[in-house]
Amino acid sequence: MDRKVFRSGPYAELIAQAVQVGDILYLSGQVGADEHGGAPESVVEQTILAYQHVAAVLAEFGATMDNVVEETVFVTDMPSVMAQVQEVFGARAAAYGGRPDVTQTLVGVSALVDPAFKIEIKCTAHL
Amino acid sequence: MDRKVFRSGPYAELIAQAVQVGDILYLSGQVGADEHGGAPESVVEQTILAYQHVAAVLAEFGATMDNVVEETVFVTDMPSVMAQVQEVFGARAAAYGGRPDVTQTLVGVSALVDPAFKIEIKCTAHL
Amino acid sequence: MDRKVFRSGPYAELIAQAVQVGDILYLSGQVGADEHGGAPESVVEQTILAYQHVAAVLAEFGATMDNVVEETVFVTDMPSVMAQVQEVFGARAAAYGGRPDVTQTLVGVSALVDPAFKIEIKCTAHL
Repeated sequence: MDRKVFRSGPYAELIAQAVQVGDILYLSGQVGADEHGGAPESVVEQTILAYQHVAAVLAEFGATMDNVVEETVFVTDMPSVMAQVQEVFGARAAAYGGRPDVTQTLVGVSALVDPAFKIEIKCTAHL
Repeated sequence: MDRKVFRSGPYAELIAQAVQVGDILYLSGQVGADEHGGAPESVVEQTILAYQHVAAVLAEFGATMDNVVEETVFVTDMPSVMAQVQEVFGARAAAYGGRPDVTQTLVGVSALVDPAFKIEIKCTAHL
Repeated sequence: MDRKVFRSGPYAELIAQAVQVGDILYLSGQVGADEHGGAPESVVEQTILAYQHVAAVLAEFGATMDNVVEETVFVTDMPSVMAQVQEVFGARAAAYGGRPDVTQTLVGVSALVDPAFKIEIKCTAHL
């Protein structure tokens, strides 16, 4: 089946940031990297950035956060995320512009691709 | 695309337990919580409860375990799960009512949202 | 909805290696097991084997690596993977026969089903 592909960033030659087939859009996990490739210390700030990257990828397909249907969220320090759960989910609600009609599975992982990253958000959207 | 959404439980304002778009139903990861929000000590008992929660969510969409096509299973103590692999997969087969025609990816994670939880089951179903 | 199912290997009675519904093909996570059920020491060699298993499962549905649209990759030792990132992604590119139009989410996990396994690759394909 035909697919539309979007590439960007330092790994553009290795992976696609998103692939659309039919009306399903698969996104690679997005991290809270800033414009210099680093990341803020705060997992809340990383969450804000990660959703900004999700929105930017969606925009390449003419889509918005309203198109996201499911999320898997990987975090490196669950106790710290749960200690700031209002702030983290507040950042999420702000990214969606209200109460999101989106599933979520949140798990703690031993590592992300760079030790500076504390959260990675993998989404599927329907267009 | 239009979606049907189901919310429930302590996180109802934060995440959807399931979202249907077209004939695909995405479920949030289900844990082995009991009716008081705690969880039994045994990962086998948690597995039984987690599948009960999957089935309850499916029922909201007029679906059953027969509609599940794939699972990703996150466990916090893989050696203990593998030491009871017959019991854990026995609980799974019982939940499906026989040999499930369902994929599975089973990985060990460093944490789930609450330290009491030992297993989380994320499913996709087709209606 | 009707599904086509493929089973194989030591867990054939427990899980399906792949399930097709409509034009979507869900695959169970594939590890770098050799023909004896063990695995080579090198994560690069395990990566090569894991993609061979992905390709073999796809072939059961008349599909090839060109049909894969998304990957979630679970590794047990992220620093070692990132230290050999050219080799690991080189093995991936070789498996796809060039620059893959495929998303990827790469996370570190605390365990896979057997301590000998260092990488597990979960794919979705469209036929």
